[in-house]
Amino acid sequence: IVINKSARTLHQSAGVIGAPFSRGQPRGGVERAPDLIRAAGLLTRLREQGCAVKDYGNVVFEDLEDDEPPGLVKRVRAVGSATRRLSEAVQAVKRDGHTTVMLGGDHSLAIGSIHGHAAAVGHLSVVWVDAHADINTPLSSYTGNIHGQSMSYLLHELQPKMPALPSFSWIRPCVWARDLVYVGLRDVDPAEHYILKLLGVKVFSMREVDQLGVARVMEETCDYLTARGKKPIHLSYDIDAIDPSVTPATGTPVAGGLSYREGVYIAEHLGQTGLLSAVDLVEVNPLRGQTEEAVQSTVSTAVDLLLACFGRRRGGNHPPEYRLPEP
Amino acid sequence: IVINKSARTLHQSAGVIGAPFSRGQPRGGVERAPDLIRAAGLLTRLREQGCAVKDYGNVVFEDLEDDEPPGLVKRVRAVGSATRRLSEAVQAVKRDGHTTVMLGGDHSLAIGSIHGHAAAVGHLSVVWVDAHADINTPLSSYTGNIHGQSMSYLLHELQPKMPALPSFSWIRPCVWARDLVYVGLRDVDPAEHYILKLLGVKVFSMREVDQLGVARVMEETCDYLTARGKKPIHLSYDIDAIDPSVTPATGTPVAGGLSYREGVYIAEHLGQTGLLSAVDLVEVNPLRGQTEEAVQSTVSTAVDLLLACFGRRRGGNHPPEYRLPEP
Amino acid sequence: IVINKSARTLHQSAGVIGAPFSRGQPRGGVERAPDLIRAAGLLTRLREQGCAVKDYGNVVFEDLEDDEPPGLVKRVRAVGSATRRLSEAVQAVKRDGHTTVMLGGDHSLAIGSIHGHAAAVGHLSVVWVDAHADINTPLSSYTGNIHGQSMSYLLHELQPKMPALPSFSWIRPCVWARDLVYVGLRDVDPAEHYILKLLGVKVFSMREVDQLGVARVMEETCDYLTARGKKPIHLSYDIDAIDPSVTPATGTPVAGGLSYREGVYIAEHLGQTGLLSAVDLVEVNPLRGQTEEAVQSTVSTAVDLLLACFGRRRGGNHPPEYRLPEP
Ligand SMILES: [Mn+2]
Ligand SMILES: [Mn+2]
Ligand SMILES: [Mn+2]
Ligand SMILES: [Mn+2]
Ligand SMILES: [Mn+2]
Ligand SMILES: [Mn+2]
Repeated sequence: IVINKSARTLHQSAGVIGAPFSRGQPRGGVERAPDLIRAAGLLTRLREQGCAVKDYGNVVFEDLEDDEPPGLVKRVRAVGSATRRLSEAVQAVKRDGHTTVMLGGDHSLAIGSIHGHAAAVGHLSVVWVDAHADINTPLSSYTGNIHGQSMSYLLHELQPKMPALPSFSWIRPCVWARDLVYVGLRDVDPAEHYILKLLGVKVFSMREVDQLGVARVMEETCDYLTARGKKPIHLSYDIDAIDPSVTPATGTPVAGGLSYREGVYIAEHLGQTGLLSAVDLVEVNPLRGQTEEAVQSTVSTAVDLLLACFGRRRGGNHPPEYRLPEP
Repeated sequence: IVINKSARTLHQSAGVIGAPFSRGQPRGGVERAPDLIRAAGLLTRLREQGCAVKDYGNVVFEDLEDDEPPGLVKRVRAVGSATRRLSEAVQAVKRDGHTTVMLGGDHSLAIGSIHGHAAAVGHLSVVWVDAHADINTPLSSYTGNIHGQSMSYLLHELQPKMPALPSFSWIRPCVWARDLVYVGLRDVDPAEHYILKLLGVKVFSMREVDQLGVARVMEETCDYLTARGKKPIHLSYDIDAIDPSVTPATGTPVAGGLSYREGVYIAEHLGQTGLLSAVDLVEVNPLRGQTEEAVQSTVSTAVDLLLACFGRRRGGNHPPEYRLPEP
Repeated sequence: IVINKSARTLHQSAGVIGAPFSRGQPRGGVERAPDLIRAAGLLTRLREQGCAVKDYGNVVFEDLEDDEPPGLVKRVRAVGSATRRLSEAVQAVKRDGHTTVMLGGDHSLAIGSIHGHAAAVGHLSVVWVDAHADINTPLSSYTGNIHGQSMSYLLHELQPKMPALPSFSWIRPCVWARDLVYVGLRDVDPAEHYILKLLGVKVFSMREVDQLGVARVMEETCDYLTARGKKPIHLSYDIDAIDPSVTPATGTPVAGGLSYREGVYIAEHLGQTGLLSAVDLVEVNPLRGQTEEAVQSTVSTAVDLLLACFGRRRGGNHPPEYRLPEP
């Protein structure tokens, strides 16, 4: 099926990578999400809406023992190795010309996903949709969990504040603070707030979503990012950006999140820019749902966010060759 | 009680018709809704807020066997017969001068309700609030369920696309596409999307509700409908327009619906135009609620939507003769 | 910790008064809320965000028998005595220079809280956030529950309509109708609506919240209140203003309330005016929650509302002396 130009961008294709990895944080279960999201019909439904899909399977990660001495950063070698492999997988998908869909796993994976994306396409914009800023440095983090530090490894401006970490020496910073926009923040550490102010990062916390509405937030997000030229967009979507009443099966839920509709709107809007080049969908953790229904709601919301990234419209679509049957 | 002119339209009166009918779709239970909605206090509460009410009881439908050969359209004779009886019942209520309240039953009943309304008052506007467009032709429908085809029988413009159906020969199309507005759509078939575009129907899908807000959606809806003169408004309200977290007891729930407040706002706004001449409230199905609480929430929301149509204001009302007791 | 001037008002301090009182209404349990809200970590969390806190403990109320003859007003002596004691407690806290935090208990307590606040600081503004207007006179009330009458005792303009009640002779009216704004109303008696119109009180019912959005409602609220000069603000927050899906553990829940985010936004906005001088948080009733989770959600929302009053920002805060650790 080729889809109507007016209804969506032509020739969309998704390259799906599963990343069953959970060691950027302490809660097991999040590594099961890639297969769950596939089982919920993601690939079929993407194809039904006219998107070409190639599934690259799951990245195989090294089985590193947690043998490093307990330090500031937990499981540093496991995360360093996993994100390196993911970076390479993402580069391969981008070489094939697809929009990357990285199904996490925890949000430390964005280190590899964004690194690989930038290695393949160069200068890019990042839209980070999350309850959390995930921008602690290894030295400012209270918990030592790398999923709360991902952006610090990637930002040029923060490198003077970063300690040398052995398994991370392969990473080259690849994002400038002015190319990063946060949406959905509502649980930000003092150190993170300090960094965001220091670097002048554009933030739409839930307060700004309340104040401006999601439509204006997305308009301002895109205006801001394209003001200095149109670059490929990397959307890093933490499912905990959405309200826990909708997506409870996640490791660090925070009250007062985006509604299902706001979450979908963000994905729709970025999908319609024609610039969306890679999407992470992370932190779905089926073991954190209290009921089967809680897990289902979380997984099906994840699927709906991804469908919206690839042109699904709530008002409907039809293929251009469609003709109504005559009596 | 006579109610303050400034607080609401004078002389409002509701003529209530129950339509315990479920054969426009496959799930039993929806035929129980009229009595449930009455039992939840609709009539008393309408009277308490100063509205005159006459209950015309339930329409008695023919007990047709499902004997037609299985074709494109399921239970065509049952629906054809039921909607014809309903059309006659609605005409009788309109002759008595009431605003019609049709308690469904499934949404195929709107064929009879709108037909009867137009037969009584002539040219009218239709506001269809629903997750679905219900505008498949018998030939484009995947499922053959008539509750997903209702508008196709009523629109002048679609008649060349309609096959002859024996039990439907009594119907005369009575609505022009430019007099129809949809609100709340989020699950639209390709054929339906094709028809909506072909006919240029005004649609506020959930995307537009997100973008504009419900207040502007309703302002634009009424501006659009009254631009070519003020006509009586037929509001056809499918309870599945509202989010399933609020109204789960319905046959085809779809995530990402209207909030309770948005649903009430729509009803309030149309109630205050002074043009509301008939209301359908359909697709409440008590057998589809998982719990008693789920059914209660669905039924009480249905009641609240109807109260809002008849002048209930969240900021309060008082009769004009009210005087504060003195010590 | 001293907090960044740009991030929040300097030298904020909260004086917390518990008011374990339930006799302004018929449902036991609401008297347990002050200790529950403290146990949920209110004081610690206020201190963590840089607010000085003094806990004045719980007011000890007289143990009056319900011996008055059954009249229009239930438990009039108990409420008269309790609100008098609370008024004195509030005056003591204001003399110490704190922003008062009164943890109810039922909303009849606002009689004492506002009276004491005005006795200490003089002319003030009142923002009453509630599903209900609580402005019946003893003679107009259907139920006789004083928590639905609180404002009538306090408004200068209503005094000609008030009967003499023995235990209430100590009260002096202290609020003018033009200094009062309601937010969140959706269940208003005819008598209350009559009074609101008669006195021209500024009301943002849920309809206006839907129409304008909470950001504009709060902007208009503050513009209105400060148009005749900046006065200390008394925020009287009934937890039933918030939707029962979020805060179900309350005595008189009403569908269609404020979202968690809107509730927090209201508190944030008033907290940032620099004028917030006293806050009531009332009507949390743990015995009215169906489940432990329902009670937890209600209590934690109450805590979050109070944190927002005292400068918590969803986009984060950091102390001005904070420096990022260097490698
Ligand atoms: Mn997060
Ligand atoms: Mn994250
Ligand atoms: Mn529907
Ligand atoms: Mn329908
Ligand atoms: Mn109250
Ligand atoms: Mn209340």
